[in-house]
Amino acid sequence: MTTGPDTKSEFTVEPWRVREIGLHPGNLAQSESVFALSNGHIGVRGNYDEGDPSGLPGTYLNSFYEKRPLPYAEAGYGYPEEGQTVVNVTDGKLIRLLVDDQPLDLRYGVVRHQERTLDMRTGLLHRDLIWETTAGKKVRVRSTRLVSFTQRAILAIDYSVEAVDQPLRVVIQSEMVSNEEIPVTSKDPRVAAALKDPLVPEEHSFSGNRSSLIHCTRASELRLAAACDHIVHGDKVHSNTYVEPNWSRTTIGTELKPGETVGVTKFVAYGWSSQRTLPALRDQVDAALSAVLHTGWDGLVAEQQAYVEEFWDGADVEVDGDPVVQQAVRFGLWHVLQAGARAEGRAIPAKGLTGPGYDGHSFWDTEMFVLPVLTATAPLAARDALWWRLSIADLAEERAKTLKLKGITFPWRTIRGQECSAYWPAGTAAFHINADIAVSAARYVFWTGDEEFDHEVALPLLVRTARLWADLGYHGDDGRFHIDGVTGPDEYSAIVDDNIYTNLMAARNLRYAADVTERWPEQAKALNVTEAEVADWRAACETIAMPFDTERDVYMQDADFTNHRVWDFQETYTNDSYPLLLHYPYVDIYPQQVVKQADLVLAMHWCGNEFTPKQKARAFEYYEAINCRDSSLSACTQAVVAADVGQVELAHDYLTEAALMDLRDLEHNTKDGVHVASLAGAWLALVCGFGGLRDYHGELSFAPTLPEAITRLAFTVRWHGCKIRVEVTHDHTTYHLEDGPDAHTEVKHYGKKFLLRTGKPVSKPTRPPKPLTPRPTQPVGRAPIVAGSLH
Amino acid sequence: MTTGPDTKSEFTVEPWRVREIGLHPGNLAQSESVFALSNGHIGVRGNYDEGDPSGLPGTYLNSFYEKRPLPYAEAGYGYPEEGQTVVNVTDGKLIRLLVDDQPLDLRYGVVRHQERTLDMRTGLLHRDLIWETTAGKKVRVRSTRLVSFTQRAILAIDYSVEAVDQPLRVVIQSEMVSNEEIPVTSKDPRVAAALKDPLVPEEHSFSGNRSSLIHCTRASELRLAAACDHIVHGDKVHSNTYVEPNWSRTTIGTELKPGETVGVTKFVAYGWSSQRTLPALRDQVDAALSAVLHTGWDGLVAEQQAYVEEFWDGADVEVDGDPVVQQAVRFGLWHVLQAGARAEGRAIPAKGLTGPGYDGHSFWDTEMFVLPVLTATAPLAARDALWWRLSIADLAEERAKTLKLKGITFPWRTIRGQECSAYWPAGTAAFHINADIAVSAARYVFWTGDEEFDHEVALPLLVRTARLWADLGYHGDDGRFHIDGVTGPDEYSAIVDDNIYTNLMAARNLRYAADVTERWPEQAKALNVTEAEVADWRAACETIAMPFDTERDVYMQDADFTNHRVWDFQETYTNDSYPLLLHYPYVDIYPQQVVKQADLVLAMHWCGNEFTPKQKARAFEYYEAINCRDSSLSACTQAVVAADVGQVELAHDYLTEAALMDLRDLEHNTKDGVHVASLAGAWLALVCGFGGLRDYHGELSFAPTLPEAITRLAFTVRWHGCKIRVEVTHDHTTYHLEDGPDAHTEVKHYGKKFLLRTGKPVSKPTRPPKPLTPRPTQPVGRAPIVAGSLH
Repeated sequence: MTTGPDTKSEFTVEPWRVREIGLHPGNLAQSESVFALSNGHIGVRGNYDEGDPSGLPGTYLNSFYEKRPLPYAEAGYGYPEEGQTVVNVTDGKLIRLLVDDQPLDLRYGVVRHQERTLDMRTGLLHRDLIWETTAGKKVRVRSTRLVSFTQRAILAIDYSVEAVDQPLRVVIQSEMVSNEEIPVTSKDPRVAAALKDPLVPEEHSFSGNRSSLIHCTRASELRLAAACDHIVHGDKVHSNTYVEPNWSRTTIGTELKPGETVGVTKFVAYGWSSQRTLPALRDQVDAALSAVLHTGWDGLVAEQQAYVEEFWDGADVEVDGDPVVQQAVRFGLWHVLQAGARAEGRAIPAKGLTGPGYDGHSFWDTEMFVLPVLTATAPLAARDALWWRLSIADLAEERAKTLKLKGITFPWRTIRGQECSAYWPAGTAAFHINADIAVSAARYVFWTGDEEFDHEVALPLLVRTARLWADLGYHGDDGRFHIDGVTGPDEYSAIVDDNIYTNLMAARNLRYAADVTERWPEQAKALNVTEAEVADWRAACETIAMPFDTERDVYMQDADFTNHRVWDFQETYTNDSYPLLLHYPYVDIYPQQVVKQADLVLAMHWCGNEFTPKQKARAFEYYEAINCRDSSLSACTQAVVAADVGQVELAHDYLTEAALMDLRDLEHNTKDGVHVASLAGAWLALVCGFGGLRDYHGELSFAPTLPEAITRLAFTVRWHGCKIRVEVTHDHTTYHLEDGPDAHTEVKHYGKKFLLRTGKPVSKPTRPPKPLTPRPTQPVGRAPIVAGSLH
Repeated sequence: MTTGPDTKSEFTVEPWRVREIGLHPGNLAQSESVFALSNGHIGVRGNYDEGDPSGLPGTYLNSFYEKRPLPYAEAGYGYPEEGQTVVNVTDGKLIRLLVDDQPLDLRYGVVRHQERTLDMRTGLLHRDLIWETTAGKKVRVRSTRLVSFTQRAILAIDYSVEAVDQPLRVVIQSEMVSNEEIPVTSKDPRVAAALKDPLVPEEHSFSGNRSSLIHCTRASELRLAAACDHIVHGDKVHSNTYVEPNWSRTTIGTELKPGETVGVTKFVAYGWSSQRTLPALRDQVDAALSAVLHTGWDGLVAEQQAYVEEFWDGADVEVDGDPVVQQAVRFGLWHVLQAGARAEGRAIPAKGLTGPGYDGHSFWDTEMFVLPVLTATAPLAARDALWWRLSIADLAEERAKTLKLKGITFPWRTIRGQECSAYWPAGTAAFHINADIAVSAARYVFWTGDEEFDHEVALPLLVRTARLWADLGYHGDDGRFHIDGVTGPDEYSAIVDDNIYTNLMAARNLRYAADVTERWPEQAKALNVTEAEVADWRAACETIAMPFDTERDVYMQDADFTNHRVWDFQETYTNDSYPLLLHYPYVDIYPQQVVKQADLVLAMHWCGNEFTPKQKARAFEYYEAINCRDSSLSACTQAVVAADVGQVELAHDYLTEAALMDLRDLEHNTKDGVHVASLAGAWLALVCGFGGLRDYHGELSFAPTLPEAITRLAFTVRWHGCKIRVEVTHDHTTYHLEDGPDAHTEVKHYGKKFLLRTGKPVSKPTRPPKPLTPRPTQPVGRAPIVAGSLH
C-alpha cells in the first residue's frame, strides 16, 4: 500500500457528501458499491438509471438466496454439501431513455456534465447529467434515488428529462427486469447452472401504470414479489404499461421544447417469503405501493431526512483537522446504518446489500466490528441482528450435533443459517465466532440495560455457546483451561492450540453465561442449566490459558506461535507477492510467524483489561513487525491499540487506511460491495482509539488522546437511553449527558470514575500520549498510508 | 475388528494356493481383486471369463490414465486443478459361451461345481466349472489364465468346453470390448463426463482370427493398442472374426458329443504410448502376438513357472505352526511381485493393478512398505520403481517452485507424476514422502552395492530432496533443527511441528545425501552441490529435533501431541463409530490424542537405532493405548515393533491382522483392489518382526524371536548378489550364505557381528523375548485379531 496514484480518489472530499464529477468508466463497479443504497432489507447498487453500461447490476433482498452445490475433490465427514448465494432479484431501478433516435448510453454521444452525489445528511442519491446525442442534441437528466428507511419495502426514484437547447422527442421506459445477465464466478457447471436464471416466473400482471412480477427461486423455493407504480409529470405526455413473465415496462412519451421537462416518479415495492402464498405476497407489495403513493415523493423524502437526522444526532463523529477522515467516518457510519437499519431479524452480510462479494454471506465481523458501532449508535439495529442469531440457534445446534459437539456452533459463513464454509480449517475450526456472538449479546445489554432482551436473547445465546466451550476445552495437567485445534481470526495460521483471542473471548462467554443465569434463575432452569454447569464455566474462565513466551517476554498468538520461524518479508516484498494467500500455499504460510491480522492485538482491544500497559506495548510492537495486513479488518484494530499504547501518530495512519478502504478502493475489490466491517472500523479507530472508549464488563470508560493533526474530536454514543457526547481537544475532554430518562451515569476518565449529569458537562484534562516503546515498524513495504497524505 | 463371522474366509487355507470352492455371489468383487493377475505392466481383475456377472470389470495398464477436473468450493493457491484416474482399458479376457440356446451366466441354470484356484508356485489362475443349463444340460468349462512375467505385453487364456452327459451345440465368443460400463464414483458431472467412455476409437482391423483395436484417451491423449489372436482346438469347428470400433469378436462354433471337447487358446497383447504413432503401436502389439504364438501356450506356461520359481527361491518365507499366516505371507509376496515385477520405470500403485481404488494412484507406502520387500526379494523391481521417481523429479521440482520451496517435492498421490491430492493438510503437507523416496534409494544401494544406481539415481534423489529439507526446516533458538507445519503418516493429526517420523526420516535423507556426494564428488558437482550445502545438511541431521515429554517420560509424535486430550474411545466404541474419519470431523480428531497409525512406532521400526530399548518399550506401550488402527498400514508396523520390544504374542496377533487384510477383507474394501502395502507388511512383520532384520545405515542385522505357536520361521533375502537364508527356531537361529559372487559377508546377531561364508552355515542361540512392560492394551474394542483364531 502506497500513497501513489491508485489511492487517488474519484470522489470529492466534503464533510457530508460523496460526489463523483465526470465520467470514470474504469471505476464503474466501485462507484456502484459506494453509491449503493440500502435499508438493510432492500439493497440496490448505484447502477446508472438506464442500466447500460454497468459494472455489475445488483438488487438484493436481505436473506433472499439460492442454493448451490459445494463440490469437493476429496470430501470429508461433516463438510457442508450445499451453499447459499445471494440472488440478484428483479431490477426495479431501470429507467431507460430514448432521445430522438438514440438510447441514452454514456458510451456513445458526449457527456457534457455528470455529477453523482450521495448526500449522507438526507439519505438521497442524486444524479445530474447533461448528455449530447451523436446528432448534437443536448438533454439534461436529473434523478434522485432513495431506499426508504421508513417504508421498508420501498425503493423510489424521481426522474426528470429536460430539453436543453433544441426540441426533442423523448421516450422514457421505466422497467422491471428479472434474471439479468451477471458474470458467472464458479467453474463448476452445477454451480453455474444453479445460479443461471434463478428466478422462475410465477405470475405477472399490470393495471394502469402499475405492474408486478412474481417469481420463485428454483432450489431454495423462496417467493419474490416486485411491483412498481408511476406518477408522470409533464404536459402532452402519453404513457402505457406492458408486462411479460420476466419484465414489465411503463413507457412515457412526449415532445419537449427547449427548457421543457418531463418526469416520472417511480415507486418500487419488494417482498419475499419462504412461507406466504402467492396472493398474500402480491397483496403485500401492492399495499406497500398504495401506502407510499399516499405518502407521496415529498413526504417520503421528508421521512427519510428525519430518520437520517435522528441517526446522526446520536452517532455523528466530528474530526477537525482531517477532512479526509471526517468524510470517511461519516461514509462508514452511513453504510453501517444502511446495512443494519431495517434488517429486522435477518443477517447483516459482510458487504451489506451493496454487492455479491463473499456470496452475500455474514461472518463473525458483523458481531465484532459492526455491532459494537450499532450498539452505540443505533441500538435497535444491533438488537435485531442478535435476534437473528437466536433465530438460527436450532440450526447451530444441529450443526454441533453433526460435529459431535455439545451446545451450538454458529456457521462461519451463511445467509439463512446453515454452514456454507467449504474449507474447514478457516471455517468450522474458527469457533471464536460463537463467543463473538454471545459476547455481543452481553454487550448489548451492558449498553442498553434491556432486560427483556437479557433473558430472551442474551441468556440462551450465552448458555448454549458456553456449553460448546465447556465441551471443546479441558483442564490440562497445568490446571489451565485449554482449547486445542482451533483457528483464530488471523487466517494465516490455523488449527492451533490456545489461540489467545479465542481463549479470552471464550472466557468472557463463559463468565457472562454464568452471570446471566444468576440474573435469571427461572429462565435458566428452563434451559436445564445446573449449578455444576455454572461452576464449571466459572472454573474454566478463571483458569483460561494465555500462552506467554517468557524468553521473548511477549504473549503468544497461540501455544506455538513465537516458536516458529519469522516470515521472509523481504523476499515477498521484492517479488511483489502480497496478498500472501494469492502467492503462497497455506502449507508455507501457516507454520511461520506472519499474520494477516493480529489476533492478539484484537484481543488487546476487546479484552484489554487482561493485560498490563507494558504487556500491551510489547505485544503491539512485536506483532506489528510480522503483520502484513492482508486483511481489511486489520488496520482499524491496529489503530485502536496503537492509540492505547501511545503510538498516536501510527494510530492516525491506520485510521486513515481503515477509513478509506472503499472510498479509495485500497484492496481493489470494492466492486463486489463495500467492506462494512472495515467501514465500521473507522468509527472504532476514532472512538475506541482516540476516544479510548471501552466497555469492559459493562463499565463505560474513556482514555482520550489525539494525534497532532486532529485538533478536535467529538462523538456521541447512546448509553442506557441517553446520549453521551464527548469532545476531545489536546487540552481537555468534555463529557455531556443528553436527553436521557436517567439524569446521571457513571463513567471513567483514564480509569477514574466520575458522575455525569444531564445538562452538567464535565471537563477533564486530556493527557498527552506516553508511548512505552519507540514507534514500532512494519514489514518492509507494509507501513500504513501516512495520515494527511491523501487529498 | 473381531474374529466373528465377517473374518471367515471364502478361501481355503493351503500353503501355496488360494482356492474358492462354489459360488459366493456376495464376494464377487473381493474375489476379483484376490484373483487379479498382473505383471506390473498389465493387470486384469479376476472377472469370470464370460464377463457377466461381475463385481467390477477391470483391465489396467500401468500409468495409463485419464485426466479429470479437481473441483473446490473454496480453492486456494497451489491447489492442483487436474486429477488423474486409472482407466479400465479394452477388456481382452472376455470369452462368452452359448450352450444350446442359453448363454453361460452363473445367475441362471445350476452351478454343479466351481473351483477357482490361484497357484502361486506356477503363476496361473485356474477355473473348473460344471454348469447345467435351465434345460438340464451339463457343460464343463476349464480355463487357465496368466499374465506373463516373461512376455510383458501378453495376457493369455486357455479355455476349453466339454459336453458332460448329453450332446451340445456350443458357440464360444472370444471378445475384446472397449469402454465397458463401470460405476460412476464422483458427483461432479465434469468428472463423470471425463471418465465416461474415455477411449476414443482410432482404428480397428482384423485378419484371420486376429483382431486389433486402437484407441486414444480424450484428455490425456494416451494411445492404446489391444490385439488378440486365437488357436482353436477341436474337430469340425468353424470360426470367424469380426471387428467394430469398440469391440472385436472371434466366434467358434461346433457340436459336441458327451465327453468331447472344444477349446481355444487366446493371446492378448497390449501396448500404450503418449508419443508413438498409431502404426508403430499397431506393429508393437502385432509383434508381441507373433512372438507369443512362436512360444506357444506350453512354452509360455513353462516360462511363467520358471520365473516364479526363481522369485520364490530368493523370497519365500516358511512359517511352521501357523498355516493361515503361511498362506497369507505367500499371497502377500505374490501380489507384491505382481505389482512390481515388470513395472519397469512406472509407478507401483497402492492397489497394484488389481482395482481402481485410490484412482490408481501411488503414494508413499510404495517406498516404505513395498520397496523394502522388493529390495530384499526382487531387487531389480525395486530399482525400476526408484528410476521412475527420478523420471518425475523435474515435475517434482516444478511443484516445489509452485510451493515456493527449494529442491523437489514429490506428489502425495499421482499416476504420471503431477500432484493429484486435493486435500492439502493430508497431501502437500505430508512432506515425509520425499524422505521416504530418497532413503529408499539409499537402502537399495545398501542392499545391492549397485554403484551405477548410486550416482545415477540415489545421488540426484538424495541431493534434490535434501535441498527441500534444508529449506523447510530451520535451526531454532534451542539449536535443534525443526520442521514445522507438516503432516506425518498418521492422518489423524495434521499440520504439526516436528513430527518425529518426518524429522528422523529427513535427518537420514540429509545424512545420506551428504554421504553420497562424498562418494561421487564429480557427479555431485554437476548438481552444483557445494561444501557449504553439505555442511548444512550434516548440521541439520545431527541436531534434528525429537520432541520428548519429560513429564510422561515418552517421545511425542509431534511437538504438542501428548499435551492434547486423549480421545474418548469408550464413546466411539459404544456408538460403533469406527473408522473415525467417517463419523467425526477432522476438527474433532486432529487436536486429540488418537492415531490412525502411530508415526512414532513407524519411526521406531525404520530409525530404531535412535531410541534405547527402554524408550521403545515405553513409547510402544503409550501409543498402543491411543491407536485405533483405522489405517491398513498400522498392524504390520505394530507387529514389527511389538516383536522388537519383546511383546511377541501381540506381534503375532498384529501379523495375523496385517497378513489377512485382503484374504479376509478386514476393511471391507478389497473389492477396489488389494492393499499391496499391507500385504507387503506380512513379510515385514515376519522378517523384520520375528526375524528382527534391520539395515540401519547399511548394516545387516538380525534379532530373532518367535511367538509360541510358530515353531520355525525360515526366510531368504538377496544381499549384494548373494542369498542369505535364515532359519529360526525357539532354540537357535541358523544363517546360510548361498550362491553369491561374494564368498562372505558380515551380519549381526543380536548386535554382535560375525562372518558368514558360502556353504558354511552359522548357528546361534535364539533368545527368549524379554518384555520391559506388561502386554500393552489397545483402545476398547480395538485389540487385534487373536493369532490362531482363524481357520
